[in-house]
Amino acid sequence: MLELPFALRPGEDAPLYEQLYRRLAGQIQAGELAAGSRLPGKRSLAEALGVSVNTVDTAYQMLAAEGYLESRPRSGFFVQEIPPGVWAGAAGPPAPGPAEPDSPFTPPAERGASSAGGEAAGPAIGPPVRFDLSTSGVDTQLFPFRTWGRIQKELLYSSPELLGHGHRQGDENLRAEIARYLSGYRGVRCSPEQVVVGAGLEYLLGLLARLLAGSTAAVENPGYARTRIILGNNGIPCHLLDIDSGGLPVTALAASGAQLAYVTPSHQFPTGITMPAGRRAELLAWARGGPGRYILEDDYDSEFRYDIRPLPSLQGMAGPEGPVVYLTTFSKSLAPSIRVACMVLPWPLLERYHAMYGVYSSTVSRFEQQTLYRFMEQGHFTRHLARLRKAYRLRMEGLCTALEEAFGPGRLRLQGRHSGLHLLLSLCGDQPQATEQQMARAARRAGVRLAGLSSYYMARPELCPPRTVVVGYAGLPPEGLVPLARALARAWLG
Amino acid sequence: MLELPFALRPGEDAPLYEQLYRRLAGQIQAGELAAGSRLPGKRSLAEALGVSVNTVDTAYQMLAAEGYLESRPRSGFFVQEIPPGVWAGAAGPPAPGPAEPDSPFTPPAERGASSAGGEAAGPAIGPPVRFDLSTSGVDTQLFPFRTWGRIQKELLYSSPELLGHGHRQGDENLRAEIARYLSGYRGVRCSPEQVVVGAGLEYLLGLLARLLAGSTAAVENPGYARTRIILGNNGIPCHLLDIDSGGLPVTALAASGAQLAYVTPSHQFPTGITMPAGRRAELLAWARGGPGRYILEDDYDSEFRYDIRPLPSLQGMAGPEGPVVYLTTFSKSLAPSIRVACMVLPWPLLERYHAMYGVYSSTVSRFEQQTLYRFMEQGHFTRHLARLRKAYRLRMEGLCTALEEAFGPGRLRLQGRHSGLHLLLSLCGDQPQATEQQMARAARRAGVRLAGLSSYYMARPELCPPRTVVVGYAGLPPEGLVPLARALARAWLG
Repeated sequence: MLELPFALRPGEDAPLYEQLYRRLAGQIQAGELAAGSRLPGKRSLAEALGVSVNTVDTAYQMLAAEGYLESRPRSGFFVQEIPPGVWAGAAGPPAPGPAEPDSPFTPPAERGASSAGGEAAGPAIGPPVRFDLSTSGVDTQLFPFRTWGRIQKELLYSSPELLGHGHRQGDENLRAEIARYLSGYRGVRCSPEQVVVGAGLEYLLGLLARLLAGSTAAVENPGYARTRIILGNNGIPCHLLDIDSGGLPVTALAASGAQLAYVTPSHQFPTGITMPAGRRAELLAWARGGPGRYILEDDYDSEFRYDIRPLPSLQGMAGPEGPVVYLTTFSKSLAPSIRVACMVLPWPLLERYHAMYGVYSSTVSRFEQQTLYRFMEQGHFTRHLARLRKAYRLRMEGLCTALEEAFGPGRLRLQGRHSGLHLLLSLCGDQPQATEQQMARAARRAGVRLAGLSSYYMARPELCPPRTVVVGYAGLPPEGLVPLARALARAWLG
Repeated sequence: MLELPFALRPGEDAPLYEQLYRRLAGQIQAGELAAGSRLPGKRSLAEALGVSVNTVDTAYQMLAAEGYLESRPRSGFFVQEIPPGVWAGAAGPPAPGPAEPDSPFTPPAERGASSAGGEAAGPAIGPPVRFDLSTSGVDTQLFPFRTWGRIQKELLYSSPELLGHGHRQGDENLRAEIARYLSGYRGVRCSPEQVVVGAGLEYLLGLLARLLAGSTAAVENPGYARTRIILGNNGIPCHLLDIDSGGLPVTALAASGAQLAYVTPSHQFPTGITMPAGRRAELLAWARGGPGRYILEDDYDSEFRYDIRPLPSLQGMAGPEGPVVYLTTFSKSLAPSIRVACMVLPWPLLERYHAMYGVYSSTVSRFEQQTLYRFMEQGHFTRHLARLRKAYRLRMEGLCTALEEAFGPGRLRLQGRHSGLHLLLSLCGDQPQATEQQMARAARRAGVRLAGLSSYYMARPELCPPRTVVVGYAGLPPEGLVPLARALARAWLG
């Protein structure tokens, strides 16, 4: 059934996994691979193609994330049913003609009509992306161009010493500002000596993993697949623990035998759950209950809380000697392209850090470090955060209103409005029995890129609430809220 | 003999290894530890102090690098003999009084007189550093402030899209410029898809090590201790192979059983040897002779060649499918604080890179990437390199002339003048039988920070040529050449 072997061409137009992805997507679109059929096992396909198992796995995961395939635990990958007409626009300009009347999703009238709003990133499949609801976006219009630019200019002409080597943990004045900010806003208890500044959380997590070599980690399921990959790449095997209504369950954590617990207690990613105080205390007690145990607290978006002040960090509960590594990033509060993240190490790990990384240099440009330092020290950062918080809260509220109006009463449920830059949208009521993956495909066909909640499940996707997608709204322009809501309603309600 | 246990204070004024370093240095200076006495083993001292073995090791290595201790293979660390009077200035202001007449080094007349030229970095021991001859310095006066600043300003106000996520390998236009430059200047044969841009060689070497997990590496001895540490931190054990007059000997490499060979063929660090064409061919034949073998070619300073054009890179001999990973950095050609380095992966490793790091983001600020792109694309970079090359050649020639005049005929030998930003200086002739470490200490006392060649030996320091120090001149101001040469002559010749 599968036309094999593909002629994958190393080093040609695209990486092998992308070539394989495109080839398979094309066959599924063309109907060459029937809905419900099982794809070959990763290992045997890899062997047949002469590529690595990783390559096949990456392609399969991409296809599953886009709704072409369904991953069934212990069975393999199966071709998803695709409503007729869905792929009409994929290979070229959209084909005209009426929608299939019995398809759960009718192609929206404006399909492919506008390409002004954005360009498709990644492999070109389907119409242009008008709205990108991925969770990694931010609104670059909110970046403090004037102030940042002024400070950068001042530094460039006045500070040639910034061309030399800096401290490997980051410049001391910047670390002091960060410690002060984290103390005031997140209750983090640390001195600047404990702060390590680095070019992104992925980099810092890699350093940390090697500091903790020999441990195993428990990570939240659903959660950040990236965390698991980074820890795995750095030699830390991960147990996937299913979260409950309070986040990571400590009983399961203890039973897993892991020494490390990676958690997002302020705003669980992607469900938005805030870990209650009782669970936090249990988690800390677990960490204190055995040698070499650490909580890795990823506080990735706690700047954006719209109702009450967030609970202080777990690190603050544990104290500077306690078993918590606090991690956060400036990607969302400034811009993803400004590569500054930081971690706060407890004293015992700090000593290990110095011994292991004594010869390393900082990975962050000193000009950006010093621009950020002055930006914080002159009070711009807290003002900027207040402005961001207000803008994103208005956007979230505007989006919820627009969605409720477009869908009508009782047809959707929105969760996670209190915090962060994304929320969960579930279809409910009596509309067609669409699956989450059909929702994602129909949205994509209408020019909206979004992911189903199940794509954040690294195991046991059957636990995922049905018909729920993740809506990241930070990158949405305010004027796009109503058109987006209407496009989704048309795509899903017909 | 050793006053134990020290009261090391975790989390106080300095990291534990530095506290231990200072304590031991103080005892040696005070004569509390007699010359020739053996320090406790690392493990037993670590146990007595309740710190990690790494902490003790780091402190011992620092003491050895500064000439307090001597490391004897399989015997341990021994307190070095210190001429009377040498430490007079260490604990406070320099003590007045004549030098011991029978000391091989007399304290220079101007000791401690000037602190204008620089500040001591690291633990404060001895008089202020007037001249830093470490190999990591560059002359920040040569940085292209005007052009760089103009491009940065243009970008900041005109390119809000640079705030978003970029490609994890680095922006495509930058990679294309780098590929073009490396092809033209270093004979590297690659397409932009093979280039990975990252925040420093250390970061890239870490990524690479995990791509090559399960391998062992051969590294040059003497060489970059940092490389060995980074590979080791990332799970790649290293064999230390003694170089010969052609660099890494391939017979020893084959015998070691290593799959990876880390080499600096253009300009061996620190000896300055250029690997001859025959050895290069042998090395490539070795790499092609077994599965999973790769040469890691660190071309760290090949921009600075003062006589003939350098041999093209090994990567160019091997071709884009060949078993060579090419690594280079912009730290020396622009500034250490601008964190841009790059590696060129052969196709088979590139596929593995995509599979393993598909979810990673770039570690380099996109503003700096795009500033560098425009700087290269507009032709500034090659003009800047030509200017640097001229300035550093003049500096090197000026330094050699100044040294030869200050020392007089037949008293020193200078090696490695053809390339790079450092050279080797050996004392010869009939002056006092000083050791390399005594030279380094006497220089330090005269306000000159430099390292003995033996400190680059990670094993078998007995192979090190006697009385040879490493002189990095890139950070020396031109007007400092004659004062530096005179200070060294006074310190060493009396």
